[in-house]
Amino acid sequence: MNAAAGSSGPVVGIVGGGQLARMLAEAATPMGIHVRVLAAPGDEGAAEVVPDIQIGDPHDPEALRSFAATVDVVTFDHENVDHDTLAQLEAEGVAIHPGVGTLRFSDKAHQRVTFAAAGLPVPPFAVIDPVADVEGAVAMAGAFSARHGDATGRIVAKASRGGYDGRGVWMLQRDEVPAFVRNYGGAPLVLEPLLPLDREVAVLVARRRSGATATWPVVETVQVGGMCDEVLLPAQIGPDVALRALEIAERVAEVTGAVGVLAIELFVSDGEVLVNEIAPRVHNSGHLTIEGTRTSQFTQHLRAVLDWPLGPTDPTAAVAVMANVVGGPSGDPRDRQPAALDAVPGAYLHLYGKTARPARKIGHVTVLGDDLAVARSAANLAADVLAGTVGSPGPGDAVAGSHDA
Amino acid sequence: MNAAAGSSGPVVGIVGGGQLARMLAEAATPMGIHVRVLAAPGDEGAAEVVPDIQIGDPHDPEALRSFAATVDVVTFDHENVDHDTLAQLEAEGVAIHPGVGTLRFSDKAHQRVTFAAAGLPVPPFAVIDPVADVEGAVAMAGAFSARHGDATGRIVAKASRGGYDGRGVWMLQRDEVPAFVRNYGGAPLVLEPLLPLDREVAVLVARRRSGATATWPVVETVQVGGMCDEVLLPAQIGPDVALRALEIAERVAEVTGAVGVLAIELFVSDGEVLVNEIAPRVHNSGHLTIEGTRTSQFTQHLRAVLDWPLGPTDPTAAVAVMANVVGGPSGDPRDRQPAALDAVPGAYLHLYGKTARPARKIGHVTVLGDDLAVARSAANLAADVLAGTVGSPGPGDAVAGSHDA
Repeated sequence: MNAAAGSSGPVVGIVGGGQLARMLAEAATPMGIHVRVLAAPGDEGAAEVVPDIQIGDPHDPEALRSFAATVDVVTFDHENVDHDTLAQLEAEGVAIHPGVGTLRFSDKAHQRVTFAAAGLPVPPFAVIDPVADVEGAVAMAGAFSARHGDATGRIVAKASRGGYDGRGVWMLQRDEVPAFVRNYGGAPLVLEPLLPLDREVAVLVARRRSGATATWPVVETVQVGGMCDEVLLPAQIGPDVALRALEIAERVAEVTGAVGVLAIELFVSDGEVLVNEIAPRVHNSGHLTIEGTRTSQFTQHLRAVLDWPLGPTDPTAAVAVMANVVGGPSGDPRDRQPAALDAVPGAYLHLYGKTARPARKIGHVTVLGDDLAVARSAANLAADVLAGTVGSPGPGDAVAGSHDA
Repeated sequence: MNAAAGSSGPVVGIVGGGQLARMLAEAATPMGIHVRVLAAPGDEGAAEVVPDIQIGDPHDPEALRSFAATVDVVTFDHENVDHDTLAQLEAEGVAIHPGVGTLRFSDKAHQRVTFAAAGLPVPPFAVIDPVADVEGAVAMAGAFSARHGDATGRIVAKASRGGYDGRGVWMLQRDEVPAFVRNYGGAPLVLEPLLPLDREVAVLVARRRSGATATWPVVETVQVGGMCDEVLLPAQIGPDVALRALEIAERVAEVTGAVGVLAIELFVSDGEVLVNEIAPRVHNSGHLTIEGTRTSQFTQHLRAVLDWPLGPTDPTAAVAVMANVVGGPSGDPRDRQPAALDAVPGAYLHLYGKTARPARKIGHVTVLGDDLAVARSAANLAADVLAGTVGSPGPGDAVAGSHDA
């Protein structure tokens, strides 16, 4: 069970050295699980806190192969990895979780097509390939926009691969779509109508190699500019919608064959629950599980990929709110922790050791409590003080303060 | 605020590389606090998970001095450090927390004398020095035993320095005491009667450099063979006793001038609360604060020594139980995690990366719940499976299983 010399217990190899690897390593330490990270030279986050780092490009077959040989199981900080090499390694018997079949779901076109075929509810969509056939793609885009652009008058175009935090996503007026497609020049796009949304929610499911699953309660994700800004537990939805979201998520876990944690982002539109997109890994929507539920997504992911028994997922408080800390105009958030804790002494601060840049997630804050509005204000206040976008308020301002003020 | 090149944010230097340093490092990572450890060559625990280790002897003035020069604040995994060098560094303005004045309280004779002088309740005691004056020490020991040996017929002799986990403590029949003292040949001893105990409890207090304190609820410590076996939250004591314990602990924090976490171990004897001994650092009696209270002792210690605002200390569940994992007859506990989680899926496992040896603490388990008896059974079952002293039971045995069975 142990491929690493000089160490006992399981060795989990994580491809990618960002904040998800960092938080997986944080979860691994108490359990006596040794973590080894394959990090690209520019990766920040994990390197600061993980002693056992191999520097290498996750697209380099040799780097991936030599890394895999030194660990008991390979898992991922991100899906931007050479799938062909992974498939070869998998065929040779290397334990890769999630497997290549699941990682292929990081392609949004593959998601939509497969989920629709499996009878899962998805928004109306079209997959077009302007590179293969630009005239055909333009014509299809025009027809799709005419047919599905009624509700809001807008169409969303998404790059099938490589987008994150609002990148690779374009909101278009329906009549702009054909010209956009003609000029796009990139790989396949998924088109969908901009739906009128009641809420956006997410469900995390952990699945063991042997098939057992554990599902966390539904969370609500609050997006700003295409980027997750806040996550709320519980989601402010009725029990029927929650039940439907959980059913869909568990079905997605089956369809994808995921091992480890799988994040399923869902639209609630006009009372209907639709699959928006999924990520076959630990996810920003699950960061509040660290303090807000009995087993964190990071702990659970490690347990799942090692095929260990899964832990309970029930909440530790009536409400939990996570607010992302996004790179601000200047300075280092690590100089602002005392001010953030002055404002909100009960805030759980998480900084990723990443250089602050505008629109870059550099940390998050979680606040537990009894009242959602109070916890939201507190979490956003602490996050904004850390980001440097508001000054340090007096201690008495904690509950009254709001990042919208 | 940052003495380390190439890194931003505060750098906390920890002298000693055992499990307390390891758990401090675990707490530092999310907050973006950089930890540097001065570890002796044989230290296990922290080295496995902290990238920034300086190898050196904490009794070597040069090692201590060069280490201190690279960090913003010096704190401790253990008190077995060269106090003279620390005092010099302190005089030169180095931030050392707890300070040398507090570290001197690791001497049990100093504790008793100072606490008694401050009017704090302590057991009857005598400090004797058989090396300086063996006949005088024997005579004093005889007189003390005659006067205070009534309740149980037994006297406890404790080495003033260097004892832990039952080492350096001897339980004697009252008439054996003079001969023991004559043959002892070591440094000062503290004598006290073996008191009839209702309970043993402990209080953790965190104190900032600027003086503000945060105190956790009273926990109960269950000792087996002079070594802490279990810790229970809440302690099974009445509100008057709890209030008295908290008052005493806060007074001890003042008297010692502690900065950081201070653990105060107390006897409850015949309804009276007496100070047993203290440790000027994070402590085994506080490990359940990691999951069982809103701010862990490790997080709080870092916040206190950096003079950051302290966090809330209220419990996260109705009951929390910690059971130590003690080195068993054979094998590596890291091969037994799945079995422990099979038995108790909700158990929080903590392994320290230390080689298993009999009577050596190599990890601990915390279980949260609603019922103390159930949580105790579960925590002890998981700890015993990890230690290898019981086999893996079936999943259905979790709640019914007990380590006493």
